[in-house]
Amino acid sequence: MKHILITILLNISILGLSHAQTQPTLSLEQATKIADAAQKKALSENWDVVIAILDQGGNLILLRRMDGTQIGSIEIAQLKAKTAFEFKRPTKVFEEMIKGGAVHLTTMPITAIEGGLPIFKDGIIIGSIGISGVTSAQDGIIAEAALKAAGLM
Amino acid sequence: MKHILITILLNISILGLSHAQTQPTLSLEQATKIADAAQKKALSENWDVVIAILDQGGNLILLRRMDGTQIGSIEIAQLKAKTAFEFKRPTKVFEEMIKGGAVHLTTMPITAIEGGLPIFKDGIIIGSIGISGVTSAQDGIIAEAALKAAGLM
Amino acid sequence: MKHILITILLNISILGLSHAQTQPTLSLEQATKIADAAQKKALSENWDVVIAILDQGGNLILLRRMDGTQIGSIEIAQLKAKTAFEFKRPTKVFEEMIKGGAVHLTTMPITAIEGGLPIFKDGIIIGSIGISGVTSAQDGIIAEAALKAAGLM
Amino acid sequence: MKHILITILLNISILGLSHAQTQPTLSLEQATKIADAAQKKALSENWDVVIAILDQGGNLILLRRMDGTQIGSIEIAQLKAKTAFEFKRPTKVFEEMIKGGAVHLTTMPITAIEGGLPIFKDGIIIGSIGISGVTSAQDGIIAEAALKAAGLM
Repeated sequence: MKHILITILLNISILGLSHAQTQPTLSLEQATKIADAAQKKALSENWDVVIAILDQGGNLILLRRMDGTQIGSIEIAQLKAKTAFEFKRPTKVFEEMIKGGAVHLTTMPITAIEGGLPIFKDGIIIGSIGISGVTSAQDGIIAEAALKAAGLM
Repeated sequence: MKHILITILLNISILGLSHAQTQPTLSLEQATKIADAAQKKALSENWDVVIAILDQGGNLILLRRMDGTQIGSIEIAQLKAKTAFEFKRPTKVFEEMIKGGAVHLTTMPITAIEGGLPIFKDGIIIGSIGISGVTSAQDGIIAEAALKAAGLM
Repeated sequence: MKHILITILLNISILGLSHAQTQPTLSLEQATKIADAAQKKALSENWDVVIAILDQGGNLILLRRMDGTQIGSIEIAQLKAKTAFEFKRPTKVFEEMIKGGAVHLTTMPITAIEGGLPIFKDGIIIGSIGISGVTSAQDGIIAEAALKAAGLM
Repeated sequence: MKHILITILLNISILGLSHAQTQPTLSLEQATKIADAAQKKALSENWDVVIAILDQGGNLILLRRMDGTQIGSIEIAQLKAKTAFEFKRPTKVFEEMIKGGAVHLTTMPITAIEGGLPIFKDGIIIGSIGISGVTSAQDGIIAEAALKAAGLM
């Protein structure tokens, strides 16, 4: 039900963008605030993660790797952010669909692991965040806390 | 249970590294000892394998292909070592998780086949080993025997 | 002459590392200071750039893209940092060698454009910085200003 | 003149292989002897290098990175060996041709830097060696010393 709702909302936002002559953007200043919030949350939990943020074009704007984070998370955080951006939905949605039996989705070039979230402004996508380093559920908690602290969720 | 224990141990080691100003290293001399032990074990079993060893930065320090080993193992051994290094855990952990139903993990850029092991010193990752050539269970036996013989496990 | 001097210095540092059992590291805190200094210099000149910093293993630890920077610089900054790290020398050294006639060096997988600098501590490489966005000479000015401000050059 | 001579010699060897039903091979034991000789020479000169050896199929059989060697040499050593194997000639031949004005050769997928040598047995190619880490002339000295010590040149 929640997925359907998200889908409906996204369709509305997509329609809204059609023929628009400008696009809301994500600045480095905003990305920094989001990353600061993510890092603060991670530190408070004693978790080490990589934080990756993409802008309205899906291009990397900021990446930080906290000391001690597993090296593989550099790529995974960016891939989660890419999937969340490219499909305008949390990576957790794909994770749950595959876990629920939709194994054919693994043939898509996606990273179906919780921890990636799209960033919207007035219903328009302006970027995404990807967190990797601890369990995917914990990664997801950080991503959500970051966007909430930045008033973007 | 074993996975939880590994996770706890890794978290301790990650904490230990935070803010450290130096990092233990893996020398070619140590890598040679590990590879010699791996090769000895493989010879004793009449198995042909590729042995790949990465250092503390995840960069290749040594590779050996025993005569007759399938060519595909050159890449697989390195990929197993890469996954073990990048995620600070045995590749077998991922293999078992996927076998156990976590099919969504196949969307990660990992090599989830037994035979890759991280190498720790005082709880800090200093490299990894990847073995490929026989069955993945046999590859795993060689990797483990090598690290044990070298006093690293 | 300068190149010879650099080569001699590098050889000394390489000797220093041989058989060392630990390696100095670059923390996110240090990388942040370097990036802050780079960004400050860029802002003071009204230049938009991407700042990429690798750690002692050659793995990305921090990336920032200033608003308005050309998208291609996301990759170029990382590639300059990669070349500076992998060959323990400024990317400008390769740029000048090729300009001076050593065209065969273009067959190496390097990015021979000024703006990448290795970062040393006590003669040992602990990472690198790559700047891209304005002219390569200007990129180089930012990289140098950043390391100097951070007391690393 | 030297290039023409090499070309003629290579053509003879190619003819010799035509219709042969077996192919001489390079064993790990032989590769180890070559690598030991290369490492001995490098140590005697106080040079740090990566040694890469390919077999009669052009596939990696052995790689060693001496402590302190620049990380970029891991790839360069393999690429030099690949070029020497694939074109049955020293990489220096290509380096000299490009330096001599044949700049169009940089559009080939080759690494035209001294330090790669093919390995022949009875006129038939059985592998190659690639050395990287010091100057390309020094890399070349090590490669040559290694093959000579192993009675393969």
